Amino acid sequence: MSEAALVQATIGDSEFDRDTAVTRRAPGVYDIDLSAGWTIINAVNGGYLLAVLGRALADTLPHGDPFTISAHYLTASEPGPAVVRTDLVRTGRTLSTGQASLLQYDDQGREVERIRVLASYGDLDELPDDVRTSAKPPAIPPLDQCFGPADAPAPVPGSSAITDRLMLKLDPSTLGWALGSPSGKGEMRAWFGLADGRDADPFSLLLAVDALPPTAFELGLSGWVPTVELTVHIRCRPAPGPLRISITTRNLAGGFLEEDAEVWDSADRLVAQSRQLARVRL
Amino acid sequence: MSEAALVQATIGDSEFDRDTAVTRRAPGVYDIDLSAGWTIINAVNGGYLLAVLGRALADTLPHGDPFTISAHYLTASEPGPAVVRTDLVRTGRTLSTGQASLLQYDDQGREVERIRVLASYGDLDELPDDVRTSAKPPAIPPLDQCFGPADAPAPVPGSSAITDRLMLKLDPSTLGWALGSPSGKGEMRAWFGLADGRDADPFSLLLAVDALPPTAFELGLSGWVPTVELTVHIRCRPAPGPLRISITTRNLAGGFLEEDAEVWDSADRLVAQSRQLARVRL
Repeated sequence: MSEAALVQATIGDSEFDRDTAVTRRAPGVYDIDLSAGWTIINAVNGGYLLAVLGRALADTLPHGDPFTISAHYLTASEPGPAVVRTDLVRTGRTLSTGQASLLQYDDQGREVERIRVLASYGDLDELPDDVRTSAKPPAIPPLDQCFGPADAPAPVPGSSAITDRLMLKLDPSTLGWALGSPSGKGEMRAWFGLADGRDADPFSLLLAVDALPPTAFELGLSGWVPTVELTVHIRCRPAPGPLRISITTRNLAGGFLEEDAEVWDSADRLVAQSRQLARVRL
Repeated sequence: MSEAALVQATIGDSEFDRDTAVTRRAPGVYDIDLSAGWTIINAVNGGYLLAVLGRALADTLPHGDPFTISAHYLTASEPGPAVVRTDLVRTGRTLSTGQASLLQYDDQGREVERIRVLASYGDLDELPDDVRTSAKPPAIPPLDQCFGPADAPAPVPGSSAITDRLMLKLDPSTLGWALGSPSGKGEMRAWFGLADGRDADPFSLLLAVDALPPTAFELGLSGWVPTVELTVHIRCRPAPGPLRISITTRNLAGGFLEEDAEVWDSADRLVAQSRQLARVRL
């Protein structure tokens, strides 16, 4: 864990908040310096990038909470300067919709679009309390019986900077891949938090859904599983405390797979659901 | 079933193809007359509208098959004239990405945006044959033991024009709602085809994922369940013959629910997966 963990960080004053902060240069134009601190293997984590886009949209739209956000990943982002452009698509009473693009510049100064997003925002605090969720929280052993990167030689090749910023403890029964014997089941379960102790909010949930090792590892595949598209539904403002996350894959075929994530908070609420389409090398 | 069913229609020459055909007026600008034939209750079916947008994007992009398409529904579409505007976002070797908007005009001739879409297209015929799907097809009784609108007094209030164009046979075990005793389970299963016998293709799959009665009916809720966002993954070109579709809801809470659809073809391939976020009146 990073030194920041020695001091409990709070929502609005944490590594994650600083590294996802966008600066409005003009209406609908935001500057951001993409941090190298959220990279894994050779990639900037797609959930971190989605949180950056999500924060720019929250500044642009009349509503502040992402209810559903759909991102299509176009080219690989790199740490360093980037620009977010946003557009207000529609303003409604309870929901507003916006669009955003993350842009970087190549050696010749040409604009390269990294990610394009459509999102509908609302106010989570305005939702009725009615809960009829039939899904059950994932069965994960207690935190102290789960394992993180610090407990083993880094199972992931290349950069693992992001692991210093996460409290990620994997269910041993989904850790076979790290020990050379993947289960063959397309499932990964973990306890999740931010290393500096910052509690979860809707923006860190956008990071959480893409923060576990890919299910492809437990399916016996290795290497990068680049996201083509990722859609996240934020259904409830998460309660303080660690989150439980399960990701599952049921359709590995034709060089692609889906990854469904469920994020549960300490109050046993299913606070986020996501699905992504990703490429695999078969 | 409509009279068209007396003659087996083919892909490219069917009611569905005619009603989703867009006419290019200029590069990236398409005219379409939204058919009243695909309405249910008071709404134009969201899957039919997605197919219209999908066909315009197929004309705009260098690749012809939707791999993943994300639609945010802004305002309720009406039968009649509409315009689709498309933009090419990025061209890649195996995938290209585009954006599209469906527009109609109000009494004062003002443009009103109905739906905005982001999509990544490819070529399904270029995908490797490798299939490691762990999901299983839904257990649905044989077609002749399932029931459609023709077998009962229309269970859905208001318009049911779309039912004339579909071969939709529901699993009796998910029909409790139609008999006044909903199961309480958020699941709906059915055999699906087009009434005129046209086989499925990637565009009719965009219709299929949104064509069953809402799971909310089996959860004891009634009335319209408007879609906020719908994302569809097309994973394989469907084999000829009827499709089996299951839709499930696991998180009805706070006035919203998710609806996950799986579409299986006659060759037992999971050809499409979708998830939508919809509003419910609790």
